Amino acid sequence: MSEALTGLELRSTVTSGGELQLTLAEVTLDPPGPDEVIVRVEAAPINPSDLGLLLGPADIATMKAGGTADRPTLTATIPPQRMRAMTARLDEPMPVGNEGAGTVVQAGENARHLLGKKVGMIGGAMYTQYRKLPARDVIILPEGASAADGASMFVNPLTALGFVETMRAEGHKAIVHTAAASNLGQMLNKICLADSIPLVNIVRNDVQAAILRGIGATHIVDSSAPDFEAVLADAIAETGATIGFDAIGGGKLAGQILNAMEVAANRNATGYSRYGSTTYKQVYIYGMLDPGPTIINRTFGFSWGLCGWLLTPFLMKAGEEVIARLRQRVADELKTTFASHYTATISLADALRPEIVEAYERKTTGEKYLIDPSA
Amino acid sequence: MSEALTGLELRSTVTSGGELQLTLAEVTLDPPGPDEVIVRVEAAPINPSDLGLLLGPADIATMKAGGTADRPTLTATIPPQRMRAMTARLDEPMPVGNEGAGTVVQAGENARHLLGKKVGMIGGAMYTQYRKLPARDVIILPEGASAADGASMFVNPLTALGFVETMRAEGHKAIVHTAAASNLGQMLNKICLADSIPLVNIVRNDVQAAILRGIGATHIVDSSAPDFEAVLADAIAETGATIGFDAIGGGKLAGQILNAMEVAANRNATGYSRYGSTTYKQVYIYGMLDPGPTIINRTFGFSWGLCGWLLTPFLMKAGEEVIARLRQRVADELKTTFASHYTATISLADALRPEIVEAYERKTTGEKYLIDPSA
Repeated sequence: MSEALTGLELRSTVTSGGELQLTLAEVTLDPPGPDEVIVRVEAAPINPSDLGLLLGPADIATMKAGGTADRPTLTATIPPQRMRAMTARLDEPMPVGNEGAGTVVQAGENARHLLGKKVGMIGGAMYTQYRKLPARDVIILPEGASAADGASMFVNPLTALGFVETMRAEGHKAIVHTAAASNLGQMLNKICLADSIPLVNIVRNDVQAAILRGIGATHIVDSSAPDFEAVLADAIAETGATIGFDAIGGGKLAGQILNAMEVAANRNATGYSRYGSTTYKQVYIYGMLDPGPTIINRTFGFSWGLCGWLLTPFLMKAGEEVIARLRQRVADELKTTFASHYTATISLADALRPEIVEAYERKTTGEKYLIDPSA
Repeated sequence: MSEALTGLELRSTVTSGGELQLTLAEVTLDPPGPDEVIVRVEAAPINPSDLGLLLGPADIATMKAGGTADRPTLTATIPPQRMRAMTARLDEPMPVGNEGAGTVVQAGENARHLLGKKVGMIGGAMYTQYRKLPARDVIILPEGASAADGASMFVNPLTALGFVETMRAEGHKAIVHTAAASNLGQMLNKICLADSIPLVNIVRNDVQAAILRGIGATHIVDSSAPDFEAVLADAIAETGATIGFDAIGGGKLAGQILNAMEVAANRNATGYSRYGSTTYKQVYIYGMLDPGPTIINRTFGFSWGLCGWLLTPFLMKAGEEVIARLRQRVADELKTTFASHYTATISLADALRPEIVEAYERKTTGEKYLIDPSA
């Protein structure tokens, strides 16, 4: 019999008094069941998709450090008008962290073969020292891969592959992507280059454009340029892109993409169509780098869709077979296509220090933080 | 052999000089081919969906009458910033009028049985005295129905029935509709009452609410009321509506509907879901009573879609069998469910008089004009 394991786990609480509280809670895990394993977490990324749960809608300018050096706490104020959406999580300490990787330190009787193996995992509550989960929810990392290599093998890789699957399933042949120099965007470029899928990359400045040129991207459009919309329409006409994935959400960009698709479609039109082109134009919003309102100038007829896109519903709809195929590709190309680069590796305690929160909350393109709870 | 027929046809031209010109052109029709008929048009409605082609983006405050009493013309200025979308129709006189009804006055050898019959038609260019079209594109009106009864038997009835078909095909069980007291909205209420489909009607004032109460509507929500969003969420929670059809397009309404659906979904949620509820929420924009930008506050997670909806692509996707079933229902219920009421019947020449254009362009709820080109 294995002994019970005790470790620290990061918890995020939104109090009914309007305060965000981050703490490290001591958690004791009973030995795993027959089909379960316990993993010592050695690497867990801070993805943009983790920040909503971690920080809620707190005003980070109000952050205050507390507690001790070993067991720090962090508090911040939540503006009252942002409390409405918080009802369902009030006063409940939430564990955080979508994905991670580490070493299997205890295994149930049907999972003995995993003992000592480095594995990748998805399932939440990864900002913790020990994580118990069903054996079927871990993937053994390929030979020579470290926990850091495997820490981000789910969210970004499956999202990027999911875009390509969605494109194919819906009958499109080229893609537009925003915030295109992100970790995810770089992966998408590598996939599209390998699979010969034309990709229009929208970036916000020269530095981001240079990152993408460096990995071989061909269509790069800078949304800060004065001729942005014309250049975007040209790139879309050239590639035939009729589907876009937008990480930003707020502002006019999603509508500008739909409009550029319409302009491109009308270049080949033979006559005036009073309700816009018959070309179906689709943009998915999958992130909210800009939480402000989406503003859509409907200059593109009625043959269009603007929808939310999220990894989990996509995978559920895609089914087991597709999931297995995508996971296999991620494992096969873990150190090439799906390699992630980290700005810094921090400890669980570091993740609660105001100056570090400020850094990882900034979501600077290409910057990404990794938590090593075993540090 | 039938003789050639000559009649007047309304034409709308947007000139490259930035002017809208409405004229009545003399058109001569050769005798119909073996499978064709010629219909003397006796009734053609001015639908909101006709106004885009008819008036373009002209500034109607600048309208000027010209020509003679019998053959009037109308001109108006188009603001330069609105000319961009007009490229494809520049300097081309466009016939107008989606649907109409009248009497078959000539018929090809395979369509003799239609001679003298009152028929309904769809296919454009209905603001004309004689319309030639394939025999299979007309529907014989039921016994006792006048041309006015059959003039609006396609666009509004098939759109309202199309909403219900779309709802069923996509797995929803109740509908939200905006501009709900319109001719179309009244039909939708009658259909939903007959088919036991819960319908949430959004109106903009008391008068519209009274119209709907008069025909038996149960869920009526006034968007001008201070507690609009709360009342809307209640009605959505009560009905279980997760699909909406919006005739307005501009402003915040489409987003408010999605948000109210999310609020309703979260009332039954068992725990906090960081990416919003898993209930899929769909709003279709099918009109543009407000051509301004659509402003979407994304407060409802990622499980949502906002798409354009248009009758013709819907019918093409639905297929022959569905179309036949819907058309049959319209014919069967032409004088009940699908009865249209007209504010006034005008001549082709009247349709070019500034004071009358001003009246039908206003799109007042419940007001609808009918052109009788044979008058």
